[in-house]
Amino acid sequence: MNELSEELLHSVIKKRPELSHKGTFGRVVLIGGNERYGGAIIMSAEAAVNSGAGLITVVTAEKNHAPLHARLPEVMVIDWLQIQDIQAVLAEADVILIGPGLGLSEHSHTLLQLVIQEQQAKHWLVIDGSGITLFAKYHYQLAYPQQAVFTPHQMEWQRLSGLTIPNQTVKNNQTAQKTLDSHLVLKSHRTTIYTFNDYFVNPLGNPGMATGGMGDTLAGMITGFLAQFDAKKDALCAAVYLHSLIGDVLGQDHYVVLPTEISKQIPYYMKRFEQ
Amino acid sequence: MNELSEELLHSVIKKRPELSHKGTFGRVVLIGGNERYGGAIIMSAEAAVNSGAGLITVVTAEKNHAPLHARLPEVMVIDWLQIQDIQAVLAEADVILIGPGLGLSEHSHTLLQLVIQEQQAKHWLVIDGSGITLFAKYHYQLAYPQQAVFTPHQMEWQRLSGLTIPNQTVKNNQTAQKTLDSHLVLKSHRTTIYTFNDYFVNPLGNPGMATGGMGDTLAGMITGFLAQFDAKKDALCAAVYLHSLIGDVLGQDHYVVLPTEISKQIPYYMKRFEQ
Amino acid sequence: MNELSEELLHSVIKKRPELSHKGTFGRVVLIGGNERYGGAIIMSAEAAVNSGAGLITVVTAEKNHAPLHARLPEVMVIDWLQIQDIQAVLAEADVILIGPGLGLSEHSHTLLQLVIQEQQAKHWLVIDGSGITLFAKYHYQLAYPQQAVFTPHQMEWQRLSGLTIPNQTVKNNQTAQKTLDSHLVLKSHRTTIYTFNDYFVNPLGNPGMATGGMGDTLAGMITGFLAQFDAKKDALCAAVYLHSLIGDVLGQDHYVVLPTEISKQIPYYMKRFEQ
Amino acid sequence: MNELSEELLHSVIKKRPELSHKGTFGRVVLIGGNERYGGAIIMSAEAAVNSGAGLITVVTAEKNHAPLHARLPEVMVIDWLQIQDIQAVLAEADVILIGPGLGLSEHSHTLLQLVIQEQQAKHWLVIDGSGITLFAKYHYQLAYPQQAVFTPHQMEWQRLSGLTIPNQTVKNNQTAQKTLDSHLVLKSHRTTIYTFNDYFVNPLGNPGMATGGMGDTLAGMITGFLAQFDAKKDALCAAVYLHSLIGDVLGQDHYVVLPTEISKQIPYYMKRFEQ
Repeated sequence: MNELSEELLHSVIKKRPELSHKGTFGRVVLIGGNERYGGAIIMSAEAAVNSGAGLITVVTAEKNHAPLHARLPEVMVIDWLQIQDIQAVLAEADVILIGPGLGLSEHSHTLLQLVIQEQQAKHWLVIDGSGITLFAKYHYQLAYPQQAVFTPHQMEWQRLSGLTIPNQTVKNNQTAQKTLDSHLVLKSHRTTIYTFNDYFVNPLGNPGMATGGMGDTLAGMITGFLAQFDAKKDALCAAVYLHSLIGDVLGQDHYVVLPTEISKQIPYYMKRFEQ
Repeated sequence: MNELSEELLHSVIKKRPELSHKGTFGRVVLIGGNERYGGAIIMSAEAAVNSGAGLITVVTAEKNHAPLHARLPEVMVIDWLQIQDIQAVLAEADVILIGPGLGLSEHSHTLLQLVIQEQQAKHWLVIDGSGITLFAKYHYQLAYPQQAVFTPHQMEWQRLSGLTIPNQTVKNNQTAQKTLDSHLVLKSHRTTIYTFNDYFVNPLGNPGMATGGMGDTLAGMITGFLAQFDAKKDALCAAVYLHSLIGDVLGQDHYVVLPTEISKQIPYYMKRFEQ
Repeated sequence: MNELSEELLHSVIKKRPELSHKGTFGRVVLIGGNERYGGAIIMSAEAAVNSGAGLITVVTAEKNHAPLHARLPEVMVIDWLQIQDIQAVLAEADVILIGPGLGLSEHSHTLLQLVIQEQQAKHWLVIDGSGITLFAKYHYQLAYPQQAVFTPHQMEWQRLSGLTIPNQTVKNNQTAQKTLDSHLVLKSHRTTIYTFNDYFVNPLGNPGMATGGMGDTLAGMITGFLAQFDAKKDALCAAVYLHSLIGDVLGQDHYVVLPTEISKQIPYYMKRFEQ
Repeated sequence: MNELSEELLHSVIKKRPELSHKGTFGRVVLIGGNERYGGAIIMSAEAAVNSGAGLITVVTAEKNHAPLHARLPEVMVIDWLQIQDIQAVLAEADVILIGPGLGLSEHSHTLLQLVIQEQQAKHWLVIDGSGITLFAKYHYQLAYPQQAVFTPHQMEWQRLSGLTIPNQTVKNNQTAQKTLDSHLVLKSHRTTIYTFNDYFVNPLGNPGMATGGMGDTLAGMITGFLAQFDAKKDALCAAVYLHSLIGDVLGQDHYVVLPTEISKQIPYYMKRFEQ
């Protein structure tokens, strides 16, 4: 076991190379946001943009395009019904996030299937929220499981691993993660990251962060970090740690910490820890 | 008679338990916002989110979804025509607010009927604005009246109680509240809260707060406080007091105090009074 | 001739009475914003809300409702095609603004006609932008011309008065204003207000304010001031002066002064001059 | 070769004349933003407004109107399918920007054709993004090429000039620019401006600016500067330099610099350098 710490931020967040362009910092596709949970994918997108991902396309129900662009013109959008366009954009992606506000409909399922089927050796996947529930329900297998991150809360992890919450001990989680053969971010009041050789406990976070959208923001940050930084396991850990670190700072003078407030702070904190 | 005071804030606003998740801080449904008054339910939602309610679903006319999400991706939305979805979300709720911008149409009436019919022992209801007018018109009875809060202004209270404004004396209001058998927040330049054993006068508030949307914001705060804090009567009183306290601070350098400005300040003030 | 000065702000901006409610501060209807110029009526609405008008309804093309509410949930909206609803809301109004972004279509004309036809003794009208152009074209007569304010720029004044810009001398303007029998705010780099007995020159304003939307914001401020303050001529002058005063302060460190930035400052400046 | 420097900002950014109106500061038309890349034209518009262009019309897919107005009511909008309206507004324009988020569809092509065909002696054109790709593909000729600015990144320049990226030497670029007979802003980590007699290297900029939308913002600034300042070549250079200067200041405490954050700062920086 390791406890995450600030050192990790220093080692992960590299000074950007002078000779670079937006493609250098990753092409990202974010998939989610149905008619009801559109806010979720908006919050993921805000986190990914503020984390520094270079080029971001959001695939979401058409009704979410206007509020997304009203908040964040920095992203591109695709109606989630346009399967061909989605395939084209997936083919060029570095990291794909699926799940925030995705829902459990037939169409949500179609999109998850598409992502799984299109995964290439170069792709990293982040599977969150209802993406995890669907993944569990249909017993999917990934082509490149080691290039995937699952970000369940405890109930979603129960669905995916079969472990009831009281049985989610470190030992059992490690066994289940080995079977899954992917990275695991198990969210709770002390989020734990299970990787192939070790597990990492996040010492930060506070109950003011227990509010709708906090996980969507974390998923967006993880996606942004994976898009930019080569040491993927460390990038993952750094995103989790920084998310809570910002939450703790905001929590000092906010009774509730809004996820969108965390996103606004990301560029400042990343600069502070830039190596 | 008691006068509300800051002590109440200290006693109500508990430090959040470490072992908690967003469900710990309440599931809330906010119903309102027709084609014309969509801003009202948006303002209620902003107040509820900033007050710290854990999970919030807004049931409103579809045209209001985009502006709501443009301001507040933290909430979920349901088209107010989807009765089955609304029933499902009501069944899981802790607190239900109905009324801000609801209007007086046939469909507004249908929604109020639905809420009344679905009230369970675990539910708290907040009935505001046109919800009160409709309630009065159709002489409804609640299954659990003591778990309801009515938040009329004086004209709405006249409709509900039959008391003309000059007759709205403390004594008459107390009698009418006993008949109603619910909590009453009677809004005026000195808002008074009538509960089962006592009544409480709010000493704060200022005429800069007399602007459209102030009541919608208060209703959202009350809903957020009821969702999180166990001592319901005190939570109600604390929401009323804090709403005015923030309004008074803003009123020191604003000629008019916008309701949305109050909502932005809630997390800071709650932290300040956190016990 | 008088030059406007800060004293006017002190005399106009009264401390609000303790015993008041939102109706005390006026019911306002703002009409404008077609498919192309929707931003204009949004800017007027922001100015009116921030000036402290109590209850504001915006009548505009349906496509403008979402962006308006995304910025300003404090207002109510009516689709500008709903003539009956508009009539109902006009009947209850204290001040009506027509013109910002109204356009020159058949329907724009219908709306202007409606406002003119519905003017009652209690109504104040503010006629701005394309409302003036249409008024001039169709040679309208108001029932209560002395309770109207026209806010043309020089070209619009030419259309309304028949005076070409070089002929818009004080003397000629006074004669034309007497014929018009209404208040006149003639906008230029030194805006001049012609009332029944006198005219007032605004010494403030700067070329950084010469940008799209500045007039829409002024029209909204005038409307908000007329809604709240009894001395109508003074209220009109105070709105013009304060608009420029804020613009001049912002202009000290902004090369261009955005109209929406002026609106945000109004509550602070009104408080500062509150008597 | 010259290196751009702050002196240029002082010489270009003139104090605005007292006797002026919004028309004095230019009529601008911005064309772009399809169903997928609507954010691009929104970011161009924000840059143009904050740069001080007097009157701005945005021609974009109808779905982009609401998010644009939610962020920026200061602009006018035209549905990009309304060819007649577009022709009318082009006829009155001083500067036309085409390209940000334009896409490569049949209709994108139609709009580019329209702009080329309508160019008059008084018009300045800025051709950006997919506008350049289309221009290259169809081998267009401008009627007034010397009143055009192309703003390609290196891949777009390859399409336009036929020079592969390794062959994009100063000498080759100069030759190709002479053939093109227009101004060239060749974007890279050290953006270079090729004019008829010289070329100018931008010494500023940082890799935190390598994020989606940065070029759209630059195109909007260039358009705004051309609209206001008479020395067109200098205005072009000043816009490029100021864009990077603001980006560098923001980059001191932001790991990633969002394009929309740059736009917000423009009015302050222009004021600082105002002559």
